[in-house]
Amino acid sequence: MRACDVVLFDRLVAPDLVAEAPARALRIERDRLSQENVNALLVAHGRRGRRVVRLKGGDPFVFGRGGEEALALVEAGVPFEVIPGVSSLSAVPASAGIPVTHRGLASSVTAFAAHDVEQLDAAALARAPGTLVGFMGLAGLARLAERLIEHGRSAATPVAVVSNGTTPQEQVVVAPLGAVARAAQHLPTPALVVVGEVVSLRETLAALRRSAA
Amino acid sequence: MRACDVVLFDRLVAPDLVAEAPARALRIERDRLSQENVNALLVAHGRRGRRVVRLKGGDPFVFGRGGEEALALVEAGVPFEVIPGVSSLSAVPASAGIPVTHRGLASSVTAFAAHDVEQLDAAALARAPGTLVGFMGLAGLARLAERLIEHGRSAATPVAVVSNGTTPQEQVVVAPLGAVARAAQHLPTPALVVVGEVVSLRETLAALRRSAA
Repeated sequence: MRACDVVLFDRLVAPDLVAEAPARALRIERDRLSQENVNALLVAHGRRGRRVVRLKGGDPFVFGRGGEEALALVEAGVPFEVIPGVSSLSAVPASAGIPVTHRGLASSVTAFAAHDVEQLDAAALARAPGTLVGFMGLAGLARLAERLIEHGRSAATPVAVVSNGTTPQEQVVVAPLGAVARAAQHLPTPALVVVGEVVSLRETLAALRRSAA
Repeated sequence: MRACDVVLFDRLVAPDLVAEAPARALRIERDRLSQENVNALLVAHGRRGRRVVRLKGGDPFVFGRGGEEALALVEAGVPFEVIPGVSSLSAVPASAGIPVTHRGLASSVTAFAAHDVEQLDAAALARAPGTLVGFMGLAGLARLAERLIEHGRSAATPVAVVSNGTTPQEQVVVAPLGAVARAAQHLPTPALVVVGEVVSLRETLAALRRSAA
């Protein structure tokens, strides 16, 4: 990062990280660009032999579209290195005091992304034996809850919605699956949805954890 | 870490990290201890007001038993902070050139841990729509493959077994689900098992990625 010529960064990454780039480095904010434009910029700067850092929030290979960017580089013959990151999948629930796996409560976790809740395989998600973590808009939450309940998840399953997780603006709403959409309707995006018995640990884990900071 | 009095660390964490602790700090290797002993040590040192770092490989809340340790601290009234880490869930497949999600191939990922493959809900895993990532011993791989195929996963599904992922000893075997147990039988543990179409990206992504280091 401190030796890069170009940094192409997601809007939500910490400004302190972007500030590590040399003053002379070209700074490009990703969020106004299409994915095709991002790929093209990485290829163009890479081909000119520049050291390019593509700085993402979370992990590039967990709902990060890093695979698409990597494929574009391969096609163009531009060498690269992938450095894994801390995914929202665990960091956001952790920030809310929720481990996504816990002995006796969940020995698996299914993370899914949904722009359109209707396209999800709700039957499979409802039957998944462990925790569910949804990267999704809150507009789809009511329909998601409805579909999971239709396919057999108990309406009493505890759910946490974590808005702006890990930031100073973090807000958490916990409610049963059958009531969560209404309870969380005022939360701002982005938000992460956690479904499963592990959510019940929050009440115990969040209090003391907070006092440690 | 640089200000701690005690560091309790997993054997597999990078020695360079443990070396960051002050020379006077008490160093305790976790791997010879039971989970109950670990919890008791964290509580005992915490109660004496010592700054204790519990340094884990991966993420403490993704198959890391961090929730159990946190609950022990809560019960004892010892304040703490949880710092999420880079989970093997994505870091190990990434090191092998495999994104666990990829547009058009997998929009969800299910991670599971299995000491005993017979206890897994194989029907649910077989039906999970996205990538599967198994934290498991290789002794159970043949039976896992058999059970997934019995419950409807195609024997042709690509599978990668990544042994000692992210280390200089990393070895990767890729084979169809129906043949992978035999193909991977000589790999040393620990290993991670990745099942799904995303494995097919490795052939393209791994080559150039390697040349970048």
